[in-house]
Amino acid sequence: MAVLRVGHRAGRDPRLTTHLALTARAFGAERMFLHPPDPELAERVRSVAERWGGGFEVVGADAWKPVVRDFPGPVVHLTMYGRPLRAVLPRLRLAGRLLVVVGGAKVPPDLYRVATYNVAIGTQPHSEVAALAVTLAELRGIPGRGRWPGARQRIVPSARGKRVVPARRTGGRP
Amino acid sequence: MAVLRVGHRAGRDPRLTTHLALTARAFGAERMFLHPPDPELAERVRSVAERWGGGFEVVGADAWKPVVRDFPGPVVHLTMYGRPLRAVLPRLRLAGRLLVVVGGAKVPPDLYRVATYNVAIGTQPHSEVAALAVTLAELRGIPGRGRWPGARQRIVPSARGKRVVPARRTGGRP
Repeated sequence: MAVLRVGHRAGRDPRLTTHLALTARAFGAERMFLHPPDPELAERVRSVAERWGGGFEVVGADAWKPVVRDFPGPVVHLTMYGRPLRAVLPRLRLAGRLLVVVGGAKVPPDLYRVATYNVAIGTQPHSEVAALAVTLAELRGIPGRGRWPGARQRIVPSARGKRVVPARRTGGRP
Repeated sequence: MAVLRVGHRAGRDPRLTTHLALTARAFGAERMFLHPPDPELAERVRSVAERWGGGFEVVGADAWKPVVRDFPGPVVHLTMYGRPLRAVLPRLRLAGRLLVVVGGAKVPPDLYRVATYNVAIGTQPHSEVAALAVTLAELRGIPGRGRWPGARQRIVPSARGKRVVPARRTGGRP
């Protein structure tokens, strides 16, 4: 599963797009294509992935259309104007590979046309981070406690406070 | 159901906190307490709610502790360090009223102590917007197509493009 963020504005959206990337990663995507590219953001996310494990990466895309056109699977564009997620979910679950597209402030009108599905969570304005999280949770389940390969550290779930331990000490695969 | 955002930084987090507020609203919360207050943000969200219906409001809080202390129900603090959502969900579903707390960059250590539950979605860093969306979706279901009272406009779900119509013309309650 991959995510494509279209219309990122490096100066204005750094935190929002970082949240999108980290959500994509934590909820099971393998990569996020970022249009236009933002090497600084990609590097920040890479350093998170280095500490916490897994193979997630942010891949800069100078143009978004080739990413959509060349993707070998259905393309799901998340938009508040689309059809209900529930209506499309069974077909999405059958797809081997899936590209989930989230727009920024200005979504290119063409995106509605080239996407396989335009999908909405409810009919109210909310957040592309929320839409992505709920969609991936429906497709992959809510993330669990599984170990992430290559992690340097991991969290031990706690009723109170924060507990982070080196991943190796407790048998996390290096 | 209410949400409390702790540690908002008006200069740095406007868009992220706006996304939190809109997610809270779209996923069924009645209000979001905002600490510290940000009247400009509250006004922006109010104008969204005016157009799209419902009674959601952002309520400024000079101190977060009284909001937690005085809340007449369980307080769920969303943190990547907490216990799995699944473990707590059955008890949350029984609660009549619920306060969901989301921290910002710096979470006051006391929050872990005074919360009824510290709850995590997985064990990986992601986004408070994602955590809030998934938690509310688990508690209330994914938002559907229901009409929002007082809306001036509403979306008609479409396979392609955007369709927004005046709410009255199609029988939306004024």
